[in-house]
This record gives sequence, structure tokens and C-alpha cells, in this order.
Amino acid sequence: MIRPMFRPMTDSLSELRDELREIEDLSSIDQLMEWDQQTQMPEGGAVARGRQMALIGKLVHQRRTSTRLGDLLGSLRSVQDEDSADGALVRRATRDFMRARRLPTDFVTELKEHTAASYVAWTKAKPNNDFASIAPVLEKTVELSRRLAGFFPDQDHVADPLIDEHDPGMTVASIQSVFSGLRKELVPLANAIFDKQGPRRDFLSRSFPIPKQYAFNREVIEALGYDFSRGRIDEAAHPFMIRFAAGDIRITTRAQEHDPTDSLYSTIHEAGHALYEQNIAAALDGTPLGHGTSTGVHESQSRLWENRVGRSRAFWDRFFPRFQETFPEALKDVDAEAMYRAINTVERSLIRVDADEVTYNLHVMLRFDLELQLLTGELKVRDLPEAWNARMKSDLGVVPETDTVGVLQDIHWYCTTVGGTFQGYALGNIMSAQFYDAALKSSETIERDVARGDFTQLRGWLVENVYQHGGRYLPDALIQNATGAPLTHAPFMRYLETKFGELYDL
Amino acid sequence: MIRPMFRPMTDSLSELRDELREIEDLSSIDQLMEWDQQTQMPEGGAVARGRQMALIGKLVHQRRTSTRLGDLLGSLRSVQDEDSADGALVRRATRDFMRARRLPTDFVTELKEHTAASYVAWTKAKPNNDFASIAPVLEKTVELSRRLAGFFPDQDHVADPLIDEHDPGMTVASIQSVFSGLRKELVPLANAIFDKQGPRRDFLSRSFPIPKQYAFNREVIEALGYDFSRGRIDEAAHPFMIRFAAGDIRITTRAQEHDPTDSLYSTIHEAGHALYEQNIAAALDGTPLGHGTSTGVHESQSRLWENRVGRSRAFWDRFFPRFQETFPEALKDVDAEAMYRAINTVERSLIRVDADEVTYNLHVMLRFDLELQLLTGELKVRDLPEAWNARMKSDLGVVPETDTVGVLQDIHWYCTTVGGTFQGYALGNIMSAQFYDAALKSSETIERDVARGDFTQLRGWLVENVYQHGGRYLPDALIQNATGAPLTHAPFMRYLETKFGELYDL
Repeated sequence: MIRPMFRPMTDSLSELRDELREIEDLSSIDQLMEWDQQTQMPEGGAVARGRQMALIGKLVHQRRTSTRLGDLLGSLRSVQDEDSADGALVRRATRDFMRARRLPTDFVTELKEHTAASYVAWTKAKPNNDFASIAPVLEKTVELSRRLAGFFPDQDHVADPLIDEHDPGMTVASIQSVFSGLRKELVPLANAIFDKQGPRRDFLSRSFPIPKQYAFNREVIEALGYDFSRGRIDEAAHPFMIRFAAGDIRITTRAQEHDPTDSLYSTIHEAGHALYEQNIAAALDGTPLGHGTSTGVHESQSRLWENRVGRSRAFWDRFFPRFQETFPEALKDVDAEAMYRAINTVERSLIRVDADEVTYNLHVMLRFDLELQLLTGELKVRDLPEAWNARMKSDLGVVPETDTVGVLQDIHWYCTTVGGTFQGYALGNIMSAQFYDAALKSSETIERDVARGDFTQLRGWLVENVYQHGGRYLPDALIQNATGAPLTHAPFMRYLETKFGELYDL
Repeated sequence: MIRPMFRPMTDSLSELRDELREIEDLSSIDQLMEWDQQTQMPEGGAVARGRQMALIGKLVHQRRTSTRLGDLLGSLRSVQDEDSADGALVRRATRDFMRARRLPTDFVTELKEHTAASYVAWTKAKPNNDFASIAPVLEKTVELSRRLAGFFPDQDHVADPLIDEHDPGMTVASIQSVFSGLRKELVPLANAIFDKQGPRRDFLSRSFPIPKQYAFNREVIEALGYDFSRGRIDEAAHPFMIRFAAGDIRITTRAQEHDPTDSLYSTIHEAGHALYEQNIAAALDGTPLGHGTSTGVHESQSRLWENRVGRSRAFWDRFFPRFQETFPEALKDVDAEAMYRAINTVERSLIRVDADEVTYNLHVMLRFDLELQLLTGELKVRDLPEAWNARMKSDLGVVPETDTVGVLQDIHWYCTTVGGTFQGYALGNIMSAQFYDAALKSSETIERDVARGDFTQLRGWLVENVYQHGGRYLPDALIQNATGAPLTHAPFMRYLETKFGELYDL
């Protein structure tokens, strides 16, 4: 049989789709192993599981960088410029292929081995308050992060290629222009609140039996729209969302008996990620566009449902009666308003993951600025704890007494590259307000619905303008299309000022 | 770099081990997907899961039949004859490779697609008592089973290659010689018992809350030796045991509130399979020898723990106090002896999976004989229900009123080949008695320990003589080595006659 040198384009496209689907399926299999490891696997399974995940990882990398995939993409070069779903698919696939091909396999292996060892070292250094022991490891991580960036010479800042991996199209310059405006307004707001008396919150440390917490949380996220016929929720040490396919998007949670907000808000947070993934258009499933478009946009959805919805007065007006019914003993002297106020306490806090909506971004921007300085060499690893503490003092008015609750608190620098991961958290908060405002403006009734605890219309707007598109648009274009404006911190600051101005009588 | 044409043999061996380990790992990944599907997966995950399992199946088949594997095995031909673990490994790997290579990929696909469609048709035909609708499907299955056998021309009976897949080294002739002797003695024993009055068993249909059943079952199998740090137990529609690695061997169960024996005995049964797998020598893990050696030997272990141990007087002497403590209401007027008698009731029954120890093998031999006749063409599919009912009448003295509880009851003929799967159940029962007797004879104290409910020594003998060897010896050799005799039904019949002679006062 003679095969033509140039096949009709539709053939190449369907071959590309088949190839990409197999790569996606292999990645999903890797995800299933990861999920099982975090939620189900007995301890005896660890060694084999590591080996099996490495094997699938190798197969995925081979397929992602194969000559066959390169040839297919090459034959579809003209499609890249089309303003169509196919065009977006070929663009994203080409981008992924080029990135993957630039990284030498040896380097990828070295980085993976180093970060795995670094993670183990961090699990010891953190409880022992022993920054000195991990400093040389972190120095090596910084060096490897610089080398990784070096494989992408077309850059304005050494951190740009690291950021581009998670928030494609964004750069240090574009992020800094948003962050600097935000910080200028955020620090005075936080300081104004710190001077005020906080609300009563003693009842939150009473006994809330864990099985009942789980039942309540389940009811909440089902009401918000999480589809249990295409997902499930399990216990894990760290809450996460994971996708195996459009029809199987799972979340995890954990709980403390004497703080029901930990499991409630982490469950809503992960359900927010899942709502995004569960509503991506079916046609994109099994392609690289079948995922949320960036870390920042993903975080905008988890934070929108967690904070904008879950920490709103409307939310507690709707759910407090059920909450009180579930925990009658703990909540006998509490009402919805007291609950709303308690879970919106603003504090000078040390720990990012426990921070309130006002201070959270200060924690993130501190990390972002410090990691840029580490990457450029302006800041030495040995001087990092001091720089951390100085910035905590200036932004939050509090200095950690140990590195355990300071520079060692977050896993990120100790388990992956330095640079690329933190900006997404603050970007998400900022975007969430911009999306939310656009949704409210879109119809006359949506604001009324939200105010009485009906989030159906809000979800509909998000599906229409964000979720269904998956990875079709890069973050900047998605935000512009959905909100009619480029990324801006203004809606977020307006939101904070209004909400916390009222709460703290500013 | 110049690579030598012939590498040193140790290199080939270690390359072979690496290759086999990757094949095992890929199969384990397939098993994990299967386990998740049966125990955890939301319904929305089904389509993608099917596709992902097919993808891994394809990769496994490619690796199992690769030229590279063939070359490695070819270069190790001389090792095959060694009476060593390496020799056994190369023999088993060569055997698997030759079998896999004989089957054309198109045929494998056709068979898989047909049996998948047949399974769906059966799930409708069975509840509707509609054998006619599935008869043409079953005819095709018989034809495909014959074609499958035809790829292995070196055979005495058309069913031999099908049997060899599950019980390697065994043949129709060798099995029939054991079965025919057994049947001759079993039918009269069963008939003698059918004439007698059965024991009281009303209390078994009282209320046994399911969570308490699970807690009790867990305690039992932990006492028998199932290691939860290398396994776990979950709910599934059908109980099964599954292995992902030496350190991760899981089981499933199900329960009915008004029959605690269903979950208890299925849990012990699967734990028996798991005890075998959990105790295979670590050195065999990740090779084709790192599994039980055959279906029959595997079933001998599930049945040994389920029946020989779990349905013994010693077992209930030990566990009845805990059982009664767990279900005080249901068991207030019952003692260990009454429990022992109730769970050993012998009946003219229609359903294989519910059958007692005496009649169980009659159900199995009926199926084995009928499937041989289907394969040789002696029996036509359209005459199968009549043949089934006639044999039920002659062996068990009872005729099913519908095909639902007759020829349609078991999944096997409707989801895989006809031939190859049923003999293992009866072989397992027969072997279990032969192994058990050998264990009792091995030391003076073992019988006393067992009689007082201490199964540690028994387990030790099984590990030593059966479990640790994994697939190193084919069933015939394993039985000869462990018991000093070839496979024989005599110990099994002696066991039944003694136990049920006493119970039914024969």
C-alpha cells in the first residue's frame, strides 16, 4: 500500500487527537495512582507505587516528546493561526511539545531526584526549626531553577519561564504591575483593621463530631453544584482536587473536631476547583485543553466559592439553620450573623494557609518577591530567614519566633522549583473578584439571587464565561473576554473595603 | 560505542528481569484501575476508565509479545533447564511469551469484544429467564473458544489449552481421572445426608447490623494472618482479591443484614487468596512467578481457610464468644455448637455459590462435563438447558424451575471462553484437603493447635510448602513436593465422610 506523503489535514488532526488522548489517558492513570496513594493505599504499597508511577511518567514523557507527535504538529502548522477550537488545540499542543522538548531528559531526572530528596529533608528540618540543615539543599534548588529557566532563552526575567509553566502568558512584569498596586492599598487596610476589636469566636473550638462535619460539607457542595455522580470525596492528609476524566473528578478533605471551618472551607475550596473541571465542554475532554487554563484562573474559582460565596452573609443565612441542626450543642447560643462575623476575623497571622481574606495576599506577595530575589541572586539563601522576618514585620506587624512558622512553613520551595507556584494564589484572589463583579453585572436578578443564597445563576455565568472553555484561552484573553477588561486588582480591593469596612466599622 | 553481539548471561538475565518487572507493573496498574472501578469509581468515570484500561491492555500485550522479549528469552534458552529459581523464571516467562505470541491480535480483539457484548446480553437474559436470547451468543462463544484452542495444536483434547491457561500442566484426562473417582463417592454421600433432618438455623436470618459484621470479619482475618499494613478491605458487588505488589494485596466483600455468613465466609475466602499472595517470597515479586501458581492451587487456599478452618468446630470454639458479644440480641439463645451445625447444613441446592461443602463439587463437575461436551460438539447449545436440568436431577435430586437459577446462574460462560475456568473450583477443594492432611502430619503439635483454634503453625506450614514458592512450581510438582503424593481426591472424601458423618449421624 502506498501512503501519500501529505495526508489530508483532517486526517492529521484526528491522528493528533488520538495521540493527545492517549497521552491524557496515561496522565490520568498516573493521577489515579497518586489519588490512591494519598487516600487508600496501605503503607506496604509505597515502594511499588513509586516505581509504577515512575514507569508511567517515563511513558508519558516519551509520548509528549516523540518525533511522531512533532511530525503531526508540524503538518498542522497552518491550523495554529485559526481562531477556532482546533487552532487553540494545535497551539496548546505545540506549546507543550516545545516546552517538553527543550528540557534534556537528564536534567528532568536530576531535578526530580533533587526535589524528592529536598522534600524528605524539609519534613525533618521544619519540625526541628533547622533552616541551616536545608539551606544547602535550597541553594541547589535555586541553581536548578535557574538552569531550568535557562533552557528558555527568550525571556525578560529569569522567573518568566517558571511562571509561564503554571500561568501561561503571564510574566514577572505583568504580575508585578498588578501586585504593587494591590499591596499599596492592602497594607493600610490591614493596619486599620488590626487596631480594631475582633468578633466573638470562642464557639468555633467546641466539639463538632467529624462524621457530622463530613455530612454537612457534602450537603453544602452538592447545593453549590458539585456532581457526585461524576466525583467523590475522601479523606487525605492534604486536601486536593484531581481529574481522571470529565466524568470522574474527585476531591479530598480532612477534619478537626474542634475547628469545623478547616474541613468546611477546604471542602468548598476543592469543590470550587472541581466545579471548574466538571463544567469544561465535553468536546475538550481528552485533549490538553480539557483542563483549567492556568493555576491562577483555577485558584480564582476555588477562592470564589470558598470566600466570595462560602464566607458571605448570604451563605450563612441559607446554611446556618442546617449547621445549627447538625451541631445543636455547640451552636446553641450562636446565630447566623455571629457565625458570619466569626469566620471573617482578620488577624496579624504567621501562617499563610490559615490567613483571612485581607492578609492572605500579603503572605503570598512576600513569597513572590523573595523568590524573585533568590533567582536573580540579589538575595542569598543564607540571608533568606532574615529577609522573611523583616518583610513580615513591615507588612503584617508580626515576626515569627521560629523558622518553623516562618520561612519553613510552606512546602513549595522544598518540593519543586523556586519560582512559578506562589503567584497563582494571589492572582486567583484578584481574578475571583473581577469575575464575580462581571457576573453580578451580567443580569438584574443575579445579585438578588446570590443575596438570598441561590447560586445557580452565578454558576451559570461562570460555566458560560470561564468553565466551558477549559484551556482554550490563555488567562489574559479569558479575563478580557469574560469581564471586558484586563486583569486589575481594583474589584478585589473594592470588595475587601466594602466587606471588611462594614464588619470592622472603618 | 560498540555493543558486543553476545552479552554475558547475567546481563541478559537482569535485562529480562527489568523487562518482566515493567510488564508486571503495567499489569498492576491495570489491576488498580479495575479495583477502583469495582469499589470507588463514580458512575461518570466508566467510559474513560474502559478506554484507559484498553490502553494499558494494549501496552501490556505489546510488551508481552515484543521481539525484544523474545530475543532476551532466546539468549537465555540454556537457563530454562536449570533446576533453580532462574530456571523456573525463564521457563514461565518463555511459556507466557509463546502463548501470547500464538494468538493473533485480531483474534484477541474479536474475543474481547464478543465476550464484553455477551456479558451485557447475559445481564439482561438472566433476570428475564431468557436463555433463547443468549443462545446464539453462546454458540459464537463456543466457536471462539474452539478457535482459541486451535492456536495450540499440540493437544489431546480441545479443552486442554483452555485449561492450561488457568491450571498449567493439567489436562482434561488428568482432571477427569480425579473427578470421576470423586463423583462416584460423592453422590451416595450426598444422598445419604439428604434423607436426614438438618440442624436448626433460624437464628441466622435475624438482624446482624452490617458495620458490626465488618468489624467482626476484620478481627477474624487479622487473627488468621491477613496483614492490613499490606492490604485493605472494601465493599464491592462481588468479593475478590487483587494484587498490585507484594506490599499491596487487597480484598473486597459485601454483606446482608439478615445473613452474616455471606460476608463472613466470602471475607475469609478472599483473605485465603490474599494469605497466599502476601506470603510469596519477596525475591519473586515483579516477576511472573510472583503470583499463585494456578487457579486450582489458589482456590485450594481460599477454600482451606474458608471451609477447613472457618467452618470447623475449633474456629467457632474460638470465635463464637466474640461473635455473640458482637450480636448479643441475635445470638442470645445460641451456642458455639449450634453455630457450627447451622453453618454446615447440607442441602439439595440449586445455586453453586451458596452450596455446602458436600454438594459444591457436584455443581462444579456438572459444569465441567457440560462445557467439554459443548466444545467437542457432542452437545448443542440449544440442548444445554435440558442437559443441565437432567444432570441436576441425577446428581442433586432437584430441578431448577427456571434457567435463571439453572443454566444462566453463573457468569463464566457468558463473559469469557467456554472451558478453562470451572475445574479450578473443584480442584481447589480436592487439593485443600490434601494440603491440610500433609500439614497435620508434619508435626505432633499442629493438630492440637488447630483443634484449639490456633492456626499459626498451620499457616507456617502453608507458607513453607506452598505460599513462598509463588509460581515457581507447576501445580502437579507443587502438590507432589508438599504432600509426597500426586493429586488425589481421597483426603477430601475422607474429610467429608468424617465431618458430615458425625454431623448427620451416618
